[in-house]
Amino acid sequence: MGHSPTDTPPPVSSLALRRVGIDTYRENVAYLHRDCAIYRAEGFQALSKVEVRANGGHILATLNVVDDHSIVGCDELGLSEDAFARLQVPQGHPATVQQAEPPASMAALGRKLAGERLGRDDFHAIVSDIAQGHYSKIELTAFVVATHRDELDREEVCFLSEAMVATGRRLNWREPLVVDKHCIGGIPGNRTSMLVIPIVAAHGLLCPKTSSRAITSPAGTADTMEVLAQVELGIDRLQAIVHAHRGCLAWGGTAELSPADDVLISVERPLNIDSPGQMVASILSKKVAAGSTHLVLDIPVGPTAKVRTMVQAQRLRRLFEFVARFMGLTLDTVITDGRQPIGNGIGPVLEARDVMQVLWQDPRAPQDLRAKALQLAGRMIECDPRVRGGEGLGIARTLLDSGQALGRMLAIIDAQGSNSFDYRNPALGPLSFEVQAPAGGVVTGIDNLQVARIARLAGAPKIRSAGVDLLRKLGDPVRAGDVLYRVHSVYPADRAFARAACAQSSGYSVGEPGEIPAVSVEF
Amino acid sequence: MGHSPTDTPPPVSSLALRRVGIDTYRENVAYLHRDCAIYRAEGFQALSKVEVRANGGHILATLNVVDDHSIVGCDELGLSEDAFARLQVPQGHPATVQQAEPPASMAALGRKLAGERLGRDDFHAIVSDIAQGHYSKIELTAFVVATHRDELDREEVCFLSEAMVATGRRLNWREPLVVDKHCIGGIPGNRTSMLVIPIVAAHGLLCPKTSSRAITSPAGTADTMEVLAQVELGIDRLQAIVHAHRGCLAWGGTAELSPADDVLISVERPLNIDSPGQMVASILSKKVAAGSTHLVLDIPVGPTAKVRTMVQAQRLRRLFEFVARFMGLTLDTVITDGRQPIGNGIGPVLEARDVMQVLWQDPRAPQDLRAKALQLAGRMIECDPRVRGGEGLGIARTLLDSGQALGRMLAIIDAQGSNSFDYRNPALGPLSFEVQAPAGGVVTGIDNLQVARIARLAGAPKIRSAGVDLLRKLGDPVRAGDVLYRVHSVYPADRAFARAACAQSSGYSVGEPGEIPAVSVEF
Repeated sequence: MGHSPTDTPPPVSSLALRRVGIDTYRENVAYLHRDCAIYRAEGFQALSKVEVRANGGHILATLNVVDDHSIVGCDELGLSEDAFARLQVPQGHPATVQQAEPPASMAALGRKLAGERLGRDDFHAIVSDIAQGHYSKIELTAFVVATHRDELDREEVCFLSEAMVATGRRLNWREPLVVDKHCIGGIPGNRTSMLVIPIVAAHGLLCPKTSSRAITSPAGTADTMEVLAQVELGIDRLQAIVHAHRGCLAWGGTAELSPADDVLISVERPLNIDSPGQMVASILSKKVAAGSTHLVLDIPVGPTAKVRTMVQAQRLRRLFEFVARFMGLTLDTVITDGRQPIGNGIGPVLEARDVMQVLWQDPRAPQDLRAKALQLAGRMIECDPRVRGGEGLGIARTLLDSGQALGRMLAIIDAQGSNSFDYRNPALGPLSFEVQAPAGGVVTGIDNLQVARIARLAGAPKIRSAGVDLLRKLGDPVRAGDVLYRVHSVYPADRAFARAACAQSSGYSVGEPGEIPAVSVEF
Repeated sequence: MGHSPTDTPPPVSSLALRRVGIDTYRENVAYLHRDCAIYRAEGFQALSKVEVRANGGHILATLNVVDDHSIVGCDELGLSEDAFARLQVPQGHPATVQQAEPPASMAALGRKLAGERLGRDDFHAIVSDIAQGHYSKIELTAFVVATHRDELDREEVCFLSEAMVATGRRLNWREPLVVDKHCIGGIPGNRTSMLVIPIVAAHGLLCPKTSSRAITSPAGTADTMEVLAQVELGIDRLQAIVHAHRGCLAWGGTAELSPADDVLISVERPLNIDSPGQMVASILSKKVAAGSTHLVLDIPVGPTAKVRTMVQAQRLRRLFEFVARFMGLTLDTVITDGRQPIGNGIGPVLEARDVMQVLWQDPRAPQDLRAKALQLAGRMIECDPRVRGGEGLGIARTLLDSGQALGRMLAIIDAQGSNSFDYRNPALGPLSFEVQAPAGGVVTGIDNLQVARIARLAGAPKIRSAGVDLLRKLGDPVRAGDVLYRVHSVYPADRAFARAACAQSSGYSVGEPGEIPAVSVEF
């Protein structure tokens, strides 16, 4: 080599740090004025990646060029809310900016885009860069799309899951048995966790349940639980509640269990992408990070569920089992009937009503929700080595029917901070309309996707009292003009959107009893 | 259905339009204050898509939430530079914003993400939405990644190409024969167009060449031509020059030939993605839109070229031929030696020097560049029905050696607007260093990718006089300490980055003559 090793390092120049009050939603953005000498000298390109250093800290950010002095001046470096919060340096502090070497993992991303298989170190590098906010939205999307469908083999899913755990906080409950349940989603109204947790906690197993908010659905468990109680608990409070009551129903976001997953969701949501590998990694990494040792997994199968056939369900089950074994998690999979929504309500308030009806043994309580919750609770109770196989369901039923589960739920609600809610007279969205059967017969199909879409358009989950209230379920006889379901909104725009969707397709089929699809049990 | 058809439409509320001076680079972004009543009422989500209407026009934009009243107030709607320019309504004008129905093509994108094959209408819908700026960066990236590698079959590539032509301007030269050339890229220094066009124009064929700027390479033809002459010509001037001189060497961007392609490149560039289907659609759509009837296509093959093997080259050739036939374009493919850079200079000024040396028949002129340009020019001249097969090369050589090609080039430069350039003493980046042979032998390999990377780090193409000047080529004998190449920069940071890259790998291999890889001619 013909050059001296004592070459000067790349120069850096100082600007005054400025917080730019734009929420760029999990992307670090840096703003430089087009006339800034450094912008011109360094040959930055729009959307190129820059490294910002101040007070010993540094972040990577995507560069946006600004033409307005009121946003940043020529001697200022602006940072979006995300970037400013991450750098943790006060406004006005001197900061330097320079072209960033691409994040270390970019070569690995390139190999994945080219269709190659990645190794353990590659996934650790990518996930660590993602968790630290080093990826732009474009790079994140590329990773999500390049790893979706069948692009990840099962070892790669293990490495991804492991890396997601490694980059976040990990809870340690200091008990040998920590049980959890999870449903892969896609079934509206399926709020079994809010029944299962009080039952299993009442049995005495430790079940610190952390849930997500809805991503693309009309309600997540955290959204529905929030109708009843506070769910955004600090980690210390969460631990205190769990130690006192053997369970909780909290939002998982504050626990920072898998920060990379939260970032990935920010692009999966707008694309409505949910692939097997990503799903398994996302679910299992959060469970392991939450300190669970045993997991009961619910995979609903049905023509409009996430999993359409038993063959698919078995394939997904094997992937979950392979990765769970790698992660040291004991997994019990339950394949369930996903042909229609579970319970009657779809939307946070409506679902909270259903849950409380079951716990209070209200005669209007949806029996399918009750039965499914008992089934899953029974399987969880059988994680207890003192319980014999097949006894769990009976134990669960006793705990529910005796009111012990209700008592435990009320204690958990009280501990988390009760929000007043009267399940007998829930405040539903006042702008409502009904959808009626066009002809007589029996209900032969309920499209999970369409019913969920209608509930979302009606305003759920953001509008807690919005959603869909199902008055008929699969197999129920109907006459022409009978009300199939009622849609609740708060805002006229939401009602109009929901109505237009219902006009397109109600989501219901009515016909002969023989037309009801069977639950496939082919293996 | 149980509702009246005279339902109120979704309400819209008015805000004052404000231009927010942020260049979001081909993404429409709308800014709403977090405390804006409409933001809170409408239940917008971060990064959700909104529709902005003002003065009869409308655009779709991605929503960013703002916490700073100096950027947008609670009664204002901010638009990024791109969005503001597209809406074409003055500041302060009342505007409404509402949740946008997803762009019409979003369902088609979802099906592509799920791995389905798309039809003609799907591609027209997607490309039209992209060209109109309806896609967010996340959606664009998803489309690019979901259609890369082998995800598009050849009919889909036809539909994509056709849609790209349909959404842009299309030139009509009103002549039966309009010839063009194109190289798929990846070979540094490969500036044959700047020789081929004056030769072929001197022969009398119409060759209105529009070129791109570098996307991921150290120089595009437009960047290099700009060293000699203006390349950003309005469409009227371009047509006048072509009619006067039978050819031009202009930047294609102003012609708006394939606006969707320009948008797609904004995400392909940061990801360094270049897949067969996208490449074929991008190239052929621009040629057809530019009014070409005949195209000579250069596919270089080599261990560090885009195409690594003859099998790949033949596969790509067949895809180009299939799509060209569908588009009504006569295609002649030439598979060339892509084992090393063509010419000596890499970077706009260095490449312009090489081109002018060949045209002026300077003894220092790189012979490989001359030979390749003559080969391609000969093939283009054979598009002339009066020329017999095999005669083109001789005609091209005569036009070059007689000075007719030089004369035509000088006329074109003059017509486009000459930039003063002395090819004998080009002003090269003053911060230079040399890379020497570590041992004696012959040059057995030059890594196109590494040499291009070093030239980019040195500052090319943005810094016109930066780049790499190769003093040795494949097969040249060298002694230890001989200079292999010289790197030119203008800024110390660029020099330091380039030096670090050279220290990592010089890009050169030196060894025994037998180690030089053969040009594969296996079919």
